[in-house]
Amino acid sequence: MTVQSVSSLRVRYVETDQMGVAHHANYFAWFEVGRTDLLRGLGQTYRELERQGIRLPVIEAEAKFLKPALYDDLVEIHTSLMEMKGARIVFQYEVRRSSPPAALATGRTLHAVLGEHGRPTRIPADLRARLG
Amino acid sequence: MTVQSVSSLRVRYVETDQMGVAHHANYFAWFEVGRTDLLRGLGQTYRELERQGIRLPVIEAEAKFLKPALYDDLVEIHTSLMEMKGARIVFQYEVRRSSPPAALATGRTLHAVLGEHGRPTRIPADLRARLG
Amino acid sequence: MTVQSVSSLRVRYVETDQMGVAHHANYFAWFEVGRTDLLRGLGQTYRELERQGIRLPVIEAEAKFLKPALYDDLVEIHTSLMEMKGARIVFQYEVRRSSPPAALATGRTLHAVLGEHGRPTRIPADLRARLG
Amino acid sequence: MTVQSVSSLRVRYVETDQMGVAHHANYFAWFEVGRTDLLRGLGQTYRELERQGIRLPVIEAEAKFLKPALYDDLVEIHTSLMEMKGARIVFQYEVRRSSPPAALATGRTLHAVLGEHGRPTRIPADLRARLG
Repeated sequence: MTVQSVSSLRVRYVETDQMGVAHHANYFAWFEVGRTDLLRGLGQTYRELERQGIRLPVIEAEAKFLKPALYDDLVEIHTSLMEMKGARIVFQYEVRRSSPPAALATGRTLHAVLGEHGRPTRIPADLRARLG
Repeated sequence: MTVQSVSSLRVRYVETDQMGVAHHANYFAWFEVGRTDLLRGLGQTYRELERQGIRLPVIEAEAKFLKPALYDDLVEIHTSLMEMKGARIVFQYEVRRSSPPAALATGRTLHAVLGEHGRPTRIPADLRARLG
Repeated sequence: MTVQSVSSLRVRYVETDQMGVAHHANYFAWFEVGRTDLLRGLGQTYRELERQGIRLPVIEAEAKFLKPALYDDLVEIHTSLMEMKGARIVFQYEVRRSSPPAALATGRTLHAVLGEHGRPTRIPADLRARLG
Repeated sequence: MTVQSVSSLRVRYVETDQMGVAHHANYFAWFEVGRTDLLRGLGQTYRELERQGIRLPVIEAEAKFLKPALYDDLVEIHTSLMEMKGARIVFQYEVRRSSPPAALATGRTLHAVLGEHGRPTRIPADLRARLG
């Protein structure tokens, strides 16, 4: 069973660049929206995790850009939890345009799991159970 | 009769700064989301306006920040068309947090109306009628 | 005597939008670069201020946009300390293009002075002396 | 012989997030500063390339984050041209902190070379000669 979520957002004007498309750096912010929503869907907001002293900093990030996203396009971020062992979590993403339907980009982020004082820590049992 | 709209968005992690709140520059991007939605609600997307050769660049922008918006807060952008004469349009904004309810910021933008070749132009009759 | 500073920066591609110019929200980030440099020039980095528990959140921000800044333009941010009383500080800004020379924008930010626990506090004597 | 360049920049406050470090999405904007400077150093600005109808959109981007960059840190972007064949160019990046010295991140971007009408095109002979 895969843990997945779908987030929707509209491309903002500020996200475009002079090539007339959404600038590629924004996709990494969209991925973040995706994993925030995936966690929320599991009943565990990232905001609450941070309050408990857990942080999931990105230690690797990558994306492939297939087709441009345009201003005001409605796009979906499909987020999947791919791996979770020890103090590491991997998410994968697909950015899709709704209309006309098209895959716009794919991506992947690898996260460390840090506890208080920024030390690597095992994924809390509660979160592990939800992600499981 | 006032032309108004309400947009909803969640504060993104990337929008926070090390003070632990949404950085003030993002509010100007949120205002832009607000006026994009106001125009869409009138049946006239800004995207389509640009295709017709009309642009509404911001020539003045201001905001007052009352309370911080936090990561993952659900906020509403209340946008109102305040003035429209000749080649100028003014929008006003209020950013509100849903829960617990609070006014977070107010703002105002003044826009030029530019036609092809970037020359000031009168607001197209069609848009004027919708905004009316 | 006025406390002033000049910062230089190049407009980044990511800062442009599909109108082909630097998006207006970036100017507020540039103003921030300006006041960071003004404080540094006085021998008091904002980073160090924060370490001492002082924060200067923006409570009002405004700008007028006169001419567009383009990708790769070299621009100067001229920052002036305009007012400092009690728990409030005001900075003013002028963004200038170097070549060909032109004023691109003006702006102003009003800041609260907050101490530990986020409570308004008087400007620390040391900073006051430097700003004086 | 490798074509390389070094760009310097200071981490902006707006680039931090509530984890207290530069948000990872900004590194992709910094890489862009790096390749803009590399091209400029070769006497061929990207701005001029775009005027000639050439665009180099990012089709793949990746980064590894080794240590956080903090607000006001002075960082260097070391950019290298790694590959150039047909209609594709690859750049590599290393982000280094000056003091105390440390490698903060590495990255890589793969670009298409597009001509007028957005069609893939061979790298112009002039640019190829400079990059060579």
